[in-house]
Amino acid sequence: MTTANVKAFVFDVFGTVVDWRSGVAREAAAFLQRHGRSAQDADAFADAWRARYQPAMQRVRSGERPFMKLDTLHRENLEEVLSEFGIDRAQVPAAELDELNLAWHRLDPWPDSVEGLTRLKSRHIIAPLSNGNVKLMIDMAKHGGLPWDAILGAEVAQAYKPTPEAYLRTLDVLMLSRAEVCMVAAHNSDLAAAQKCGLRTAFIPRLQEHGAAQTTDLKPDGNWDWVARDLVDLAKQHNV
Amino acid sequence: MTTANVKAFVFDVFGTVVDWRSGVAREAAAFLQRHGRSAQDADAFADAWRARYQPAMQRVRSGERPFMKLDTLHRENLEEVLSEFGIDRAQVPAAELDELNLAWHRLDPWPDSVEGLTRLKSRHIIAPLSNGNVKLMIDMAKHGGLPWDAILGAEVAQAYKPTPEAYLRTLDVLMLSRAEVCMVAAHNSDLAAAQKCGLRTAFIPRLQEHGAAQTTDLKPDGNWDWVARDLVDLAKQHNV
Repeated sequence: MTTANVKAFVFDVFGTVVDWRSGVAREAAAFLQRHGRSAQDADAFADAWRARYQPAMQRVRSGERPFMKLDTLHRENLEEVLSEFGIDRAQVPAAELDELNLAWHRLDPWPDSVEGLTRLKSRHIIAPLSNGNVKLMIDMAKHGGLPWDAILGAEVAQAYKPTPEAYLRTLDVLMLSRAEVCMVAAHNSDLAAAQKCGLRTAFIPRLQEHGAAQTTDLKPDGNWDWVARDLVDLAKQHNV
Repeated sequence: MTTANVKAFVFDVFGTVVDWRSGVAREAAAFLQRHGRSAQDADAFADAWRARYQPAMQRVRSGERPFMKLDTLHRENLEEVLSEFGIDRAQVPAAELDELNLAWHRLDPWPDSVEGLTRLKSRHIIAPLSNGNVKLMIDMAKHGGLPWDAILGAEVAQAYKPTPEAYLRTLDVLMLSRAEVCMVAAHNSDLAAAQKCGLRTAFIPRLQEHGAAQTTDLKPDGNWDWVARDLVDLAKQHNV
């Protein structure tokens, strides 16, 4: 497949560019210990928090709730996870929860992410097309050195992926045609939604996103335009 | 005035960060020559194009027209400037006008801009709060090496400065309080509007923005929080 026409790469971020599970677990471990729980539950805590991500966005996608920032949904979900782990919400200062909620702003990139993005940026526009809100993406980029050209995604589009408007409004902001924009993700479902909107697609496996026992997205299961080992390999496939 | 609380600097761009007049005139000169006109009219052409900028946005601000990208307004204004310069619109291919319209995407930074922004970025969020649309700002940043953390401004806010929503929605996206965000501009009117919304303010004189005979914005005429010679001086005043 020719690479000549791709002018912008837009990226899923949680799982594709950064390792959300380790980052959230790291901060959850300290939190759990402060509240008399075992740091060993930190991975489970991260998984439980993430498990509430899609259902919370679904209430926005369905129109049950207006669009709101992912930070707000994360913060609500955190309170529910506390109950799940038997921690009394009333015993935890709100400021401490606000701070733990920022764990999502401090996630580390995968080892290849900064080099891969930097190479792709040399000849293309690169931007997140994440469900994370703009401030979350700014803080994360400053934390990890992600060299985005712009911060796009759900908050700018006012729609959560995989709603078509999330992709289509991003095309409108970029003033590019569908075939000039490539969605990059470690999640087949995200690519399927992008492809349905006419975008080009690139799959990157992230086999440790959910830890060692991961069972999903182990391989591409669609007709994606590119499949690469990681973001550096994707850059090489595009001759940068 | 303490600098401790400023977490983000947001910037006017046309005139403050980049030299729009020289950049537009450079491309207008080549265009005028191709159409049998004198390249000596290029500065006047740039000024005439820019003169239509505020009135075009005013029709959006007043509600007469819905929000639309500045690229669209620039393109409409360009057709009017052609008539003003006695060039028959019907004789010019649309693609050539589309290309000339992109002159605004290729403006050069002032000599201090990249260093000043880079220094400020080391400890603060930096983003344009320009009336230029996102794609215009992305292209300009890639052209001139402007190291923005994010592209904010009129298109993200869906409101043109100095409408209060342009500033207030930017605060909302940044999730910062008014006192944590500083508007930087070479235009006193922009700072007055930002200050009215509670933002902090920094004035940078750009005495050549309108050429050697400039009469406006030669000095600060409000009670701004900072006044700096240029963006490097502003960074120094903030100890970066």
